[in-house]
Amino acid sequence: ELQSRGDLEIPPCSGTGYTPAAMTVLAGSAGFPAYSTPASSDCPKHLSVTVEDFEVVCRGLYRALCIREKNMQQSLQRFPKTPSQYLRTIEGETWKPSDVGPVFTPPVKDGQDPFDTGNLPEDLGYHVQMKDGVVYVYADKAAAERNEPKDLPYPSLEHFIDDMNFLLVLIAQGPVKTYSHRRLKFLSSKFQVHEMLNELDEMKELKNNPHRDFYNCRKVDTHIHAAACMNQKHLLRFIKKSYLVDANRVVYDAKGKQLTLKQLFQQLKLQPYDLTVDSLDVHAGRQTFQRFDKFNDKYNPVGASELRDLYLKTENAINGEYFATIIKEVGSDLEDAKYQHTEPRLSIYGRSPEEWAKLAKWFNTHRVYSPNMKWMIQVPRIYDVFRSKNFLPHFGKMLEYIFVPVFEATVNPQAHKELSVFLRHITGFDSVDDESKHSGHMFSTKSPKPEEWTSQKNPSYTYYIYYMYANILVLNNLRRQRGMNTFLFRPHCGEAGAITHLLAAFMTADNISHGLNLKKSPVLQYLYFLAQIPIAMSPLSNNSLFLEYAKNPLLDFHQKGLMVSLSTDDPMQFHYTKEPLMEEYAIAAQVFKLSTCDMCEIARNSILQCGMSHEEKVKFLGQNYQEDGPDGNDIRKTNVAQIRVAYRYETWCYELNLIAEGLKNE
Amino acid sequence: ELQSRGDLEIPPCSGTGYTPAAMTVLAGSAGFPAYSTPASSDCPKHLSVTVEDFEVVCRGLYRALCIREKNMQQSLQRFPKTPSQYLRTIEGETWKPSDVGPVFTPPVKDGQDPFDTGNLPEDLGYHVQMKDGVVYVYADKAAAERNEPKDLPYPSLEHFIDDMNFLLVLIAQGPVKTYSHRRLKFLSSKFQVHEMLNELDEMKELKNNPHRDFYNCRKVDTHIHAAACMNQKHLLRFIKKSYLVDANRVVYDAKGKQLTLKQLFQQLKLQPYDLTVDSLDVHAGRQTFQRFDKFNDKYNPVGASELRDLYLKTENAINGEYFATIIKEVGSDLEDAKYQHTEPRLSIYGRSPEEWAKLAKWFNTHRVYSPNMKWMIQVPRIYDVFRSKNFLPHFGKMLEYIFVPVFEATVNPQAHKELSVFLRHITGFDSVDDESKHSGHMFSTKSPKPEEWTSQKNPSYTYYIYYMYANILVLNNLRRQRGMNTFLFRPHCGEAGAITHLLAAFMTADNISHGLNLKKSPVLQYLYFLAQIPIAMSPLSNNSLFLEYAKNPLLDFHQKGLMVSLSTDDPMQFHYTKEPLMEEYAIAAQVFKLSTCDMCEIARNSILQCGMSHEEKVKFLGQNYQEDGPDGNDIRKTNVAQIRVAYRYETWCYELNLIAEGLKNE
Repeated sequence: ELQSRGDLEIPPCSGTGYTPAAMTVLAGSAGFPAYSTPASSDCPKHLSVTVEDFEVVCRGLYRALCIREKNMQQSLQRFPKTPSQYLRTIEGETWKPSDVGPVFTPPVKDGQDPFDTGNLPEDLGYHVQMKDGVVYVYADKAAAERNEPKDLPYPSLEHFIDDMNFLLVLIAQGPVKTYSHRRLKFLSSKFQVHEMLNELDEMKELKNNPHRDFYNCRKVDTHIHAAACMNQKHLLRFIKKSYLVDANRVVYDAKGKQLTLKQLFQQLKLQPYDLTVDSLDVHAGRQTFQRFDKFNDKYNPVGASELRDLYLKTENAINGEYFATIIKEVGSDLEDAKYQHTEPRLSIYGRSPEEWAKLAKWFNTHRVYSPNMKWMIQVPRIYDVFRSKNFLPHFGKMLEYIFVPVFEATVNPQAHKELSVFLRHITGFDSVDDESKHSGHMFSTKSPKPEEWTSQKNPSYTYYIYYMYANILVLNNLRRQRGMNTFLFRPHCGEAGAITHLLAAFMTADNISHGLNLKKSPVLQYLYFLAQIPIAMSPLSNNSLFLEYAKNPLLDFHQKGLMVSLSTDDPMQFHYTKEPLMEEYAIAAQVFKLSTCDMCEIARNSILQCGMSHEEKVKFLGQNYQEDGPDGNDIRKTNVAQIRVAYRYETWCYELNLIAEGLKNE
Repeated sequence: ELQSRGDLEIPPCSGTGYTPAAMTVLAGSAGFPAYSTPASSDCPKHLSVTVEDFEVVCRGLYRALCIREKNMQQSLQRFPKTPSQYLRTIEGETWKPSDVGPVFTPPVKDGQDPFDTGNLPEDLGYHVQMKDGVVYVYADKAAAERNEPKDLPYPSLEHFIDDMNFLLVLIAQGPVKTYSHRRLKFLSSKFQVHEMLNELDEMKELKNNPHRDFYNCRKVDTHIHAAACMNQKHLLRFIKKSYLVDANRVVYDAKGKQLTLKQLFQQLKLQPYDLTVDSLDVHAGRQTFQRFDKFNDKYNPVGASELRDLYLKTENAINGEYFATIIKEVGSDLEDAKYQHTEPRLSIYGRSPEEWAKLAKWFNTHRVYSPNMKWMIQVPRIYDVFRSKNFLPHFGKMLEYIFVPVFEATVNPQAHKELSVFLRHITGFDSVDDESKHSGHMFSTKSPKPEEWTSQKNPSYTYYIYYMYANILVLNNLRRQRGMNTFLFRPHCGEAGAITHLLAAFMTADNISHGLNLKKSPVLQYLYFLAQIPIAMSPLSNNSLFLEYAKNPLLDFHQKGLMVSLSTDDPMQFHYTKEPLMEEYAIAAQVFKLSTCDMCEIARNSILQCGMSHEEKVKFLGQNYQEDGPDGNDIRKTNVAQIRVAYRYETWCYELNLIAEGLKNE
């Protein structure tokens, strides 16, 4: 049962009992208003906006947070308690704990089969049908014809566009920009003061914490692609091993001609025994910087798409057996290492209606399961490619292929047994592709509906994101009704391209991957801080593609208190060692001089961000992990100093409180 | 047998057959003189010194190289062929291959016992005695009284001081500084051009090179301290394991009171089961930056010197058993990983005459051997500490304790069996301590002789270095006469402190560790380039102690063509993963964006720099590894592109040739 403290009033701004030295200094005599009660007439002075502007700013930020809160709650995603409490205070309302949120599949128990198809719920007999790019659920076909969908929350495009337009104005508004910029600068400096004053005390807490250190606190690789989840050396070894065992096995279908592994390599003029990491050529190098296209080619071992098909795909002449085996080896290594988990993404393209069934079959047939892995579905934004090859008549069809099968399996699980099992192990959706490509399209109420989007041009990022979100919203509510697990929306966002991407994700996504471009928008950065939106950052990946390591904003974000985790993205392309996630942490620790407390805080963030079940989170973070602030931290499990968590919490409350103060006279 | 090409004339400046595109551009039409024959009247123009200055510069650099050549040859250390050939050309002499150089112990053969004491040479009956800080060898005591030493090369302090004073002037001379600075800048730019033009060709070479890649080319950790050669997690695991097995064993002598492991931990108020990496507290953090003293304290697990004594020392109540076991575990991990080697340093302090015998006993008793380890002796420069505690009457006594036992074992191995075996496994001497401490002493002919150095003040770095070198010189020549292996002098140098340290090492050391301060002296940096003096760099160590990672000159030195290798220094304090050397390479590769060719070149440098036997170097680098330039590179073993090696060689010859041209009219 979820633990909650429903009767909590607005969080105290001091007196958590952990108030470290820095707080005293910051709250007391340092020349700006006392900690918990800035007199509203004083505020603007140190905030460098006028009294009038300050109210405008606070109103804007307030509404932005309300938009996100509403969207998260409707789609059964997460919005933290603390800002909700402040929003209710501003409204003069009493905060009540929300009873909606994501549903995760409980962990597989000992003796239980993760692929068990018993106890699948009955067929509801509902009819599902897409309308304007969103799947609707009807009691039956007749109800669909009458346009009488079942009573589920459906998204409103008009409201979404309204909200979006409001936010587009907000992030460009002078005073809001100034205010956000100043607050972020303040957060930076404040952390530095905190560090100087409390670093040794934090370390002392950790030293006195028995059993637990950075090595045995749990950490999740929050962003990783299944097709690149092994490192280059592992893939090389696997290819050589497969040749030793399977040389004479038919493994490839070259347009109807069956080839054995030996024949395939002969055709490619390759001798597996001679292969090296160099000739395999899957590692990103200086050539891939700012070249997402070249990076994508790195998925082809030895530059041969045949080998990608054979080793890194779920659909091929051997039914994806090699790929499944490699992934299971990665899983088994993780289980051996014990404290590391990973959330690999598998692709659904929306190119044909059978994709889900095939992927589910692969998953079930090869029993691709590890307790240290949680699965996600990534949808590449490549409608334009499929349309130009005439695989799809319009964008709506792509959405249909992506979502309708999932709705059908949700309505009638017994008719889609493998898919139902597979969906039980899926925790979220990702949206992926090169963000630096510009679509030229601007999402508005006048944009063509997905069924009308017949042009060869790709829709904009926001358009994609909205329709992913809209369908997940309906789907999650349906699945919750059925007692099934729901899905988080966790798109790639802000790796490159326009800052509107980050705005779209602010409105729709539980959490994101990358977030680099928050650098470019103080308002969005401040909003991501206020809403504590988790960001899975991959500085080694960025270093090979978009941004040099030392310039990565990870450290800056972390210091300001944005909720960042570390992830590998693509160990095959970026990492050198057998433990890519540890490599990612080690390099960040070295280059950014992170303390153990920093590293453990980031590890804790990764568990909070990920799609693990409630039971697992309790096990890895402690009973009260859902509480904000020090009450939610169990140092015995997380190895994060209470001083740190108290600092974060009080800092967060201080910022939220400023907004509440700014709106007190309204 | 050593392969040599004695009849080689001065190396050709082009036409090695590998001349890559960059060379053509650089040699041809790029606006500066053609590659191999700069007309001497043209030289100064692009060298930005006048004709007269150019001659002065060349004469200075020439003499500097001659000094090093002479000192290396006298002490049986290494000086490459190519600059020797140019020096002879300048002198109008014909170059003959030198038949002197270091002698390494051949690898232990299958079935052979590395600790075998059979076949130790007979007693020569010689008498050894220190005079003015240098050990002299006499036929017998009477000869010593007559002051008639055996016919061995002995160092001349006067010559050394003369040479030193010459070099001190040289590195401060305006035109030499300008010239060196310009040449180094040129080398940087030239490498960048090379990279842009030939990067893909180098990569192609590597891709076409079967079997070999970065993972399976050999690499040596050229600078590592035995007492910190395990990582923090390994030490923690070992401590916990020892407690499980040995709780009731007497392991510690507390001033006569025998303590069991359990009692020792009780006395320290520690519960081994509760220990974590945090409480172990051996990792360097932000607190150690610019604080070598704090860093040294990190050698004490849980801050307790008792645990350092028990786990990380060779002399204690259990005769260093735990320390030996940990090291053997590290060795066995290396053997499993196969391609990684390491050169750990053990300490001789010069505090008592029994140190060598005790250390040798430890080594033999616990059979501390791994084919992947070569041993070195480090001598801390802490005379002042010992003198202040009255352990030593003067500095000469310290030198005596350090060197006389080795001479005695060399003269009469059968009387010092364990030490003789130990010395067979020793490949060199290191000189260690905090270089940023300033001694205030300036080495000159007027400096007190070591026996007269009775003050509590520490001698200067140069003074230490000279007397280490002087004794190694005599010792090596004696050992060579006896058919025994000789020692390389490989001090820590240029990690901090005055640039005179780097000057002293230029005169005396086969190769050095760190070398950061070459940044500060263009002349020395250029000389280290010209003489290709190997530098074992440890950017992760520097990052915790002296210099932030991104500011490390490793990349700059590598690009210019200085001979750098990568080393870990202290995995216990600096590294996070199970493979510290791979972590060091991975981080350098990521932060500096090294190509595979760069990494393999650095790995190759590490083998050339290290104290491995000729047989092993042949095995790991190829038959002709002693040749300079592409003839010496076997890509099948090193995975370094021939284009790269040709580029390096031609660049090197070009610089040497400039000096020869500058002196043509003399």
